Amino acid sequence: MAKPGKVTLSDVAKAAGVSSGTVSNTINRPESVADATRRRVQAAIRQLGFVPNEGAARLRSGSSRLLGLVVPDIASSFYAEIAKGVARRAEEHGHAMLLFDTGDDLDREVRQLETLARHRSIGALIAPRMADERHLRRLRALDMHLVLIDRPASEHDGCSVSIDDVQGGRMAARHLVALGRRRLAFVAGPVGVPQAERRLQGFRDAVADEVSVEPAVVHADSSDFLGGGEAARALLAMDPRPDGVFCVNDQLAVGVVNELTRAGLRVPQDVAVVGYGDTSVARSASVPLTTVRQPMSDLGRAAVDHLIRESEGVAESRMHHHSSTVFQPSLVVRESAPLPE
Amino acid sequence: MAKPGKVTLSDVAKAAGVSSGTVSNTINRPESVADATRRRVQAAIRQLGFVPNEGAARLRSGSSRLLGLVVPDIASSFYAEIAKGVARRAEEHGHAMLLFDTGDDLDREVRQLETLARHRSIGALIAPRMADERHLRRLRALDMHLVLIDRPASEHDGCSVSIDDVQGGRMAARHLVALGRRRLAFVAGPVGVPQAERRLQGFRDAVADEVSVEPAVVHADSSDFLGGGEAARALLAMDPRPDGVFCVNDQLAVGVVNELTRAGLRVPQDVAVVGYGDTSVARSASVPLTTVRQPMSDLGRAAVDHLIRESEGVAESRMHHHSSTVFQPSLVVRESAPLPE
Repeated sequence: MAKPGKVTLSDVAKAAGVSSGTVSNTINRPESVADATRRRVQAAIRQLGFVPNEGAARLRSGSSRLLGLVVPDIASSFYAEIAKGVARRAEEHGHAMLLFDTGDDLDREVRQLETLARHRSIGALIAPRMADERHLRRLRALDMHLVLIDRPASEHDGCSVSIDDVQGGRMAARHLVALGRRRLAFVAGPVGVPQAERRLQGFRDAVADEVSVEPAVVHADSSDFLGGGEAARALLAMDPRPDGVFCVNDQLAVGVVNELTRAGLRVPQDVAVVGYGDTSVARSASVPLTTVRQPMSDLGRAAVDHLIRESEGVAESRMHHHSSTVFQPSLVVRESAPLPE
Repeated sequence: MAKPGKVTLSDVAKAAGVSSGTVSNTINRPESVADATRRRVQAAIRQLGFVPNEGAARLRSGSSRLLGLVVPDIASSFYAEIAKGVARRAEEHGHAMLLFDTGDDLDREVRQLETLARHRSIGALIAPRMADERHLRRLRALDMHLVLIDRPASEHDGCSVSIDDVQGGRMAARHLVALGRRRLAFVAGPVGVPQAERRLQGFRDAVADEVSVEPAVVHADSSDFLGGGEAARALLAMDPRPDGVFCVNDQLAVGVVNELTRAGLRVPQDVAVVGYGDTSVARSASVPLTTVRQPMSDLGRAAVDHLIRESEGVAESRMHHHSSTVFQPSLVVRESAPLPE
């Protein structure tokens, strides 16, 4: 049966023939202890199997070496990739990551931040479901360091990390135009998703620069491959039929490709299709997808750096200036919209 | 700037006109405090914005209300789904989840468990990359409660939760036989993955019960859709060609379906294909996959229950008996191997 904590700091001090303060210094500020003494203490720590107690260390130092990541759905590959970057980067800084899944519940999100405060987390990286001012005020009232993930900085007077969705839309448009496509269409799920709206904005702007005809816009009932099938049927009914389609995510794009193929059209010869996200379905699609890749892991790592900079700066009474990091997406070219020969 | 912890328990006690002990009781054992007093203390807590310190509470009670989840790759949908179940269930128990990604590094895995011990976590749920006895001994030497995830109990003298892979293989075989398929094949990635071997064992056993011919076994260089393409080319070269194929994961199955289709065969008419996992690619495949679904979220929830039962039992000096929970998978029938008409 496990009984962590049964060996105490004083046991180690006694065994090494030093004071408890020296043991503590060996653990927390090894450079302040003479080499021979430090080695003696470290040997005693190993021999007795002593595990320093972070809870006690925290009460003295005020720092928990814990940080929180709060996301709407950890089972979605977007947030799972971010979590991977956060976990790895936190570890490099000597911190551990507490992960919370809000399941899109605003009240739960607030309770989870309260839990993080109780654990004296240095702060939270949060992708709030609603980035409206009222909800963010509620979160900020909890008086902890918050770094917003995947939300533009203007919505938050704090640090933030995001990926340039407008630029992603522009990239998709420019690629389709470079392939010679002129009858363009944009496919998304339900109206009102901010990321989708920013991608549409970039797509529209870049199309307007190059082509005289406005792109068609199709909204499906769902943002998955079923929605893609539904959107494809709408595209097939258009006259003239689009020859270049940009979908706001890969699942929609796979649904579009499958349905167009079923209707006897060839992708990319008749219709070129571009997805978004470079998720696993993009690579394994029957026609592998050209898609916009987002640096999720980098995003997670940068979010950790922002939070640690803020919390250490404030702890050391240095002036902290909030900042935002915006990553550029990149285009991955595959068969659904290949490079011109 | 955030300064969590500036309001103390004594501030609340002063404001409410009670002792610090009463404030502590109101937080930890509300049922022991008279209604009127409790309401007065709670009002003071709200008014002052007091946040109880879990670190201090932990030093008194010995319980951190933290538990760890240690997985090889949080970006894989299998572990991300488990994490979702663990996070939700931990929360229901009033615990928070520390998540670690080992990235398949055995030494990192040990260091992460040490970190969990330092944070006085009640224990860890762990899907160790290597479930060999030597590595498990190393983990158990850390003297903390461990619940093994997705590893059979025999490999661990502790609690475990897993999904019956042998049964999953049996289900796939029985379904293909029920469809009238007699020339069966099994497709996996590299040799030596224990889960794949258990699925093959179940598949073989069930085939032997019903069909006189041994199934063909194909191993590809990778366990993804590229490996599936490679396996499909091997299947196409066989004489007689298999008419029913079971793949150990959905990515392989998608690769098989795409390559068979490219070669002019019809799925399921010429070859029925069954995948494993019911991941997102199963639903969005050009021919949606019949596949074996695993209850990942239930697995995560059960793992939390095992850990809490063990840690509370030991803390209260009750006898703890290790136990294993084995979940049954289920078959999801779609177009790649539909029910007989």
